[in-house]
Amino acid sequence: MDNEIREFYNEYGIREWNRLEEDIYSRINFILHMDFIKEHLHEGIKILDAGCGAGRYSIEFANMGCKITLFDISDEQLRIAQKKINEQNVNHNIEGIFQGDIKDLSSFENESFDMIICYGAPLSYIIDDREKVISEFYRVLKDKGVLAVSVNNKWGILKMLLGNQNLDFFSNPKYWLLNKVMETGDLLKHEKITHPPRHFFEGKELEKLLTDGDFKNIILGGSPCFSCGNAQSIEEICKDKKALETIIDIELKTYTKRTMVDNGEFLLAKGIKE
Amino acid sequence: MDNEIREFYNEYGIREWNRLEEDIYSRINFILHMDFIKEHLHEGIKILDAGCGAGRYSIEFANMGCKITLFDISDEQLRIAQKKINEQNVNHNIEGIFQGDIKDLSSFENESFDMIICYGAPLSYIIDDREKVISEFYRVLKDKGVLAVSVNNKWGILKMLLGNQNLDFFSNPKYWLLNKVMETGDLLKHEKITHPPRHFFEGKELEKLLTDGDFKNIILGGSPCFSCGNAQSIEEICKDKKALETIIDIELKTYTKRTMVDNGEFLLAKGIKE
Repeated sequence: MDNEIREFYNEYGIREWNRLEEDIYSRINFILHMDFIKEHLHEGIKILDAGCGAGRYSIEFANMGCKITLFDISDEQLRIAQKKINEQNVNHNIEGIFQGDIKDLSSFENESFDMIICYGAPLSYIIDDREKVISEFYRVLKDKGVLAVSVNNKWGILKMLLGNQNLDFFSNPKYWLLNKVMETGDLLKHEKITHPPRHFFEGKELEKLLTDGDFKNIILGGSPCFSCGNAQSIEEICKDKKALETIIDIELKTYTKRTMVDNGEFLLAKGIKE
Repeated sequence: MDNEIREFYNEYGIREWNRLEEDIYSRINFILHMDFIKEHLHEGIKILDAGCGAGRYSIEFANMGCKITLFDISDEQLRIAQKKINEQNVNHNIEGIFQGDIKDLSSFENESFDMIICYGAPLSYIIDDREKVISEFYRVLKDKGVLAVSVNNKWGILKMLLGNQNLDFFSNPKYWLLNKVMETGDLLKHEKITHPPRHFFEGKELEKLLTDGDFKNIILGGSPCFSCGNAQSIEEICKDKKALETIIDIELKTYTKRTMVDNGEFLLAKGIKE
């Protein structure tokens, strides 16, 4: 198990649960992640939430009557998830809570799940062996099962830094290893980076990963896509309820456009095993 | 000739000349428009600048030794262009200055030009008969000639309004005919709109227009693409020279990515007659 990632998320604690509701931009992010899979969510289906964090999505699915298996590298995140599950009284829809690394799904039998969700960028922490993770996802999915992932997007993250007017970053590209990240997508050990090493994706690359893993009908998305890099404007404008509706409407109309997706902060992808 | 458009640009006057250098965001726009065609620009080639406005691009090309024909609907814009040509001493590379509507290129013989530039959205003012304009461009181009256009981009313009925190727009989508624009791309007569009726494009649609007009090797671009919707951050950050270099570098690396182009304020497209 990757102890650096485990410790990072243990330390991250409740911030992971709060992450998706702390501001309007994050709420839009959550809405798009949910919209991306809504056609596949049915009562009673078995879902593996791989890299579930504090269980934000798991509990949403459990509330819809899906049967959830939670899986995360961080024992602290799983402890928070269990607390939230108790609070929200959805224990009857929780089939198991497992601590583990997504690189090793040996706890699960072949064809165990109707859907696997790997949201919030667990895949971005896999620097080598991404293909192995995808093939394990494939193995534990039933026939016609759906895999949905979200990862950090290379250009979307840069747009976010631009929107935050991060002068230090743009005036010191060498220090921040920008050229290397733009070329390879990898951001390895670095004194100012608090996150463990991460990979930043482009749409084409994530699509190829799923296609090579034999998934079909790949669809990509950006989240948030239209609003990416404009969190402050969104926060300001969307104090007006009608404006918030308008922004969400534009997001929903654009976030899966092939000609937009590399612009989103998170990159979404889904595919079917068939 | 469309008098409404002619009068709008007559009235617009010198602002059209200044448009591409009034701030850093606009200068990036100019850099990308130039980069998009730089591989095709050679000394001595004949260029038609269709919808040349005040001649900003024409004079740039003339300075590089290209032979330019200026064409615009606005007599006032052409008057400014003539003045700028005189100031910059490039008369020897100007082959003609014509007032006219891009819907009617009958002044020009078949296969007269190596390149046609239609930059700054003249095509966006053509609500009907866009196919006819493209076929006329095709007719007056030589074999292997290049057509390069830029038009208003539907989603990029909305991103710009978001970046400007235009609350009135987002809280009154009905008044601003937003749904109609998102569906059809057309923004027709409207009491608060000062521009003549315009069409806002998506990448796919502009690509189809050029493909149907028998152009080959179509390439799309967004301009500015990475910075779209962030003019204020750009202005702030790019007071630092190194940060400006970084931003331009990111723009150049991203603006022709298929998975980004619908995000740019202007949508660029080029194709070859062959």
